[in-house]
Amino acid sequence: MLKALFIDLSGVLYEGHKVIPGAVAAIKKARDHQLVLRFVTNTSRRTRTQLLTDLKNLGFELQEEELFTAPVAVHAWLEEKKLRPYCLIHQEIKSEFSDLPQTVPNAVVIGDAEQGFCYDNLNRAFQLCQQGAPLIGIGYNRYFKLGGQLLLDAGPFIKAIEFAASTRAMIIGKPSEDFFLQALTSTKLSADQVLMIGDDIYGDVEGALNAGLNACLVRTGKYQPGDENKLSESHLTCDSIVQAVDYAITLQ
Amino acid sequence: MLKALFIDLSGVLYEGHKVIPGAVAAIKKARDHQLVLRFVTNTSRRTRTQLLTDLKNLGFELQEEELFTAPVAVHAWLEEKKLRPYCLIHQEIKSEFSDLPQTVPNAVVIGDAEQGFCYDNLNRAFQLCQQGAPLIGIGYNRYFKLGGQLLLDAGPFIKAIEFAASTRAMIIGKPSEDFFLQALTSTKLSADQVLMIGDDIYGDVEGALNAGLNACLVRTGKYQPGDENKLSESHLTCDSIVQAVDYAITLQ
Repeated sequence: MLKALFIDLSGVLYEGHKVIPGAVAAIKKARDHQLVLRFVTNTSRRTRTQLLTDLKNLGFELQEEELFTAPVAVHAWLEEKKLRPYCLIHQEIKSEFSDLPQTVPNAVVIGDAEQGFCYDNLNRAFQLCQQGAPLIGIGYNRYFKLGGQLLLDAGPFIKAIEFAASTRAMIIGKPSEDFFLQALTSTKLSADQVLMIGDDIYGDVEGALNAGLNACLVRTGKYQPGDENKLSESHLTCDSIVQAVDYAITLQ
Repeated sequence: MLKALFIDLSGVLYEGHKVIPGAVAAIKKARDHQLVLRFVTNTSRRTRTQLLTDLKNLGFELQEEELFTAPVAVHAWLEEKKLRPYCLIHQEIKSEFSDLPQTVPNAVVIGDAEQGFCYDNLNRAFQLCQQGAPLIGIGYNRYFKLGGQLLLDAGPFIKAIEFAASTRAMIIGKPSEDFFLQALTSTKLSADQVLMIGDDIYGDVEGALNAGLNACLVRTGKYQPGDENKLSESHLTCDSIVQAVDYAITLQ
């Protein structure tokens, strides 16, 4: 019995500034059928507030408490641990971390830093980790799609620093089990009552399966032919969010 | 019975532009004791010819055929396979690859590209590999030491692209067994008659052990306290090339 949908944003609801055809109506339909919705994203190019505005402008109505973003979770964790982060993150979300002390850093945060991924910045991150600073990843995504191109996300750079400094990053966001469970707790449902819908075979689908959720890969966004065969665990594959929601309704 | 020494260059014979104290005399002593010498390096900031000149200027006399460099081995492999490489390599060694066709690339080569490691170049490398181009690594070193700092080497960037494109790089140079064996073949000796001396616990020591050679870690160059405890396989650890050569002579 399916009671809730966890939905990735970019590549599932929209691509760039364009809504995936039928996505707005699909979300409305899911709500009409009393499916609990949570939106779970690793997007680290927009603040949570910006994302809510973006979504509203695209026609999606959602409550603030339905949106779980990786940067917000990272910020909460750093605050709790009283860490001073060296932030290799996107220009656009620097404001989300600006209240934290960042001089004499004792932790490294890597998100989708885009042009911030240069040799000097990566060396700084490596040297801090080599000296023992914990490494925190905003998600572990390999790539994302923008303007028709696949571009490197935070994951490969986290991997690079892990390898260089012989360390293991703490991943906050998908595919971390903790992140899925944080969203799950807010629904008061059990994992098997939830279907995660995403375009990332690893971050969304594999991550959700590892957290005990059901999962559905959509053939939009960063999806590449053959992605549906990359995992040994079974999962759904749908053409888009439209088909995924229709299918979910039949499983209620 | 030890008959030959394989010696890493940077961090073992010199650091930056400074000879490691006693290194010139140690090499001479090894020759006086009829030890066969090979110099095996992943250095990808200098061409082979430049390296020979550098070494001569520092006081080391060696024959061209004693020097095995990873970029030369990579070039030979690309030529043999008739590949057109996209080269993410250091400015200084671009000349070593300039005879190869590089338009419409169908292979990716990653060396120590220094400032060449920027987001745009890494995306290009990723996109080519994602489309099926083979990835070739000039060594797999994690970091090197320069001006008192540890800096990222090619390894972490190779790792990043491997992860992003779900591929496995072909590593040419240390720690690849083929590279050690290429040098070994030139000596006509067996692996157990050779001692590899290096400052990189993974690239030099672990790599040599995997190729069946004996290995000695030196506490110079990029060596960090604790490195001698990183491997489960047994190996020697010496203060420097001076002690390593003295020890080798007792094992002849």
